[in-house]
Amino acid sequence: MNRTDLVKQIFNKKSFLCVGLDVDMNKIPKHLLKEEDPIFAFNKAIIDATAKYCVAYKPNLAFYECYGIKGMIAFERTISYLKSAYPEHFIIADAKRGDIGNTSTMYAKTFFEEYNLDALTVAPYMGEDSVKPFLEYKDKWVILLALTSNKGSHDFQLIEDKNGERLFEKVLSKSQEWGNEDNMMYVVGATQGKMFEDIRKIAPNHFLLVPGVGAQGGSLQEVCQYGMIKDCGLLVNSSRGIIFASNGTDYADVAAVKAHDIQLEMANELSKLA
Amino acid sequence: MNRTDLVKQIFNKKSFLCVGLDVDMNKIPKHLLKEEDPIFAFNKAIIDATAKYCVAYKPNLAFYECYGIKGMIAFERTISYLKSAYPEHFIIADAKRGDIGNTSTMYAKTFFEEYNLDALTVAPYMGEDSVKPFLEYKDKWVILLALTSNKGSHDFQLIEDKNGERLFEKVLSKSQEWGNEDNMMYVVGATQGKMFEDIRKIAPNHFLLVPGVGAQGGSLQEVCQYGMIKDCGLLVNSSRGIIFASNGTDYADVAAVKAHDIQLEMANELSKLA
Repeated sequence: MNRTDLVKQIFNKKSFLCVGLDVDMNKIPKHLLKEEDPIFAFNKAIIDATAKYCVAYKPNLAFYECYGIKGMIAFERTISYLKSAYPEHFIIADAKRGDIGNTSTMYAKTFFEEYNLDALTVAPYMGEDSVKPFLEYKDKWVILLALTSNKGSHDFQLIEDKNGERLFEKVLSKSQEWGNEDNMMYVVGATQGKMFEDIRKIAPNHFLLVPGVGAQGGSLQEVCQYGMIKDCGLLVNSSRGIIFASNGTDYADVAAVKAHDIQLEMANELSKLA
Repeated sequence: MNRTDLVKQIFNKKSFLCVGLDVDMNKIPKHLLKEEDPIFAFNKAIIDATAKYCVAYKPNLAFYECYGIKGMIAFERTISYLKSAYPEHFIIADAKRGDIGNTSTMYAKTFFEEYNLDALTVAPYMGEDSVKPFLEYKDKWVILLALTSNKGSHDFQLIEDKNGERLFEKVLSKSQEWGNEDNMMYVVGATQGKMFEDIRKIAPNHFLLVPGVGAQGGSLQEVCQYGMIKDCGLLVNSSRGIIFASNGTDYADVAAVKAHDIQLEMANELSKLA
């Protein structure tokens, strides 16, 4: 999906919500466990309930891989269902891949050819040749980790070089030699608050994928205040706050309510751009 | 596997070779393509041919994931075969994972419980809580990326902070607050030559996993000169240089010869420790 279509969807739906499909068998409603494929059953119901309130879905591969082949089958079924039932949604594989060139090429094939997804999260530590193979696909996106939402983000991402440039800033500036605003986004945690101002100094026009609203405690309002740009430029993700809002038989309905609540807040934020 | 058993195996076999099982369907001998599971058939033959010359195997997940479910079945079959036929070998999943705490926990389950492997490569960018979940398993190892073998390693890993400490050095020192010499190794590319001296200043006793000998051009002799310690402290990986040394029907025999050549060099290096 290209940027124009993504932005069009955002303004049509008045939403820049991404729903994280991080399914944990210990957290899904008990009655689903008797289904032949509980993970897919759960995902399908969540997707049907939330599709009109969100523009993107983001399955995190860890939550599928951990169930082995069974989990990967559930992942493939989820992707197939999304692509046939909701083809306008932007699909992000949250996999945080990145390896030497010939290996990243294989990962790119996996996610952009085998699964034909729109975007993949990529870790920057190994530099240019670990990222570039992902940038060779038209209308596909690399979403590079910049300043993540977790406590450990302070360990290395904030290290300053001799000129006072922090590592995440170096990632933002250096990576713009490899990709552009039409094929690269950055992960910036919602918990980073005012740091969005610093991000926007270096990446004024890139889309940012923002996890950390909800369970991790980030504020949507703050993210928008410091991070939103003319064409929105934000995809804000919520996973646990939506999909595990109830673990009863009403889980899909409750997920819809939670997603709708966030969408209404987002509509309000988008209205400020007019 | 604990360090004592790994070291014992190294000195028994006079080898610290790790064979990288990075199977590419375009590079395996054509006659295997008619097999029901060409990837597993290839791996099995390579393993049988090389097992006595190496102490470890390292499948890179990218090369399995890219074939979807079929690829993951081949991965699982390879692991099962290794564990039953060659239980003394150390098995590393080269996956370069790392995510926020609850997600890394799922990856740890995948590789250390579901597949019951010995070690996993992990990317350090997201810091402490992205690494720690992997360190909670007895006799399992995190192999943290420090200074990689590729050209892109220069982009971020060599950035110096105000005190002249480079990012890879920071990764080495900081991570020693989380793990120790018995549950953590570091990836250092064979192409980094004399930099092994700098690594050994900060991590004098840790095992290092060293890719980049062979196709990537690193020198085994140089790695040993600057990186070897009393109990060896090195696992040197070769993938393409061994497994794709021939693409004819003699591929396993040629792989054995290549592995044996490296093992003989390694025996010579180990003899210098006496």
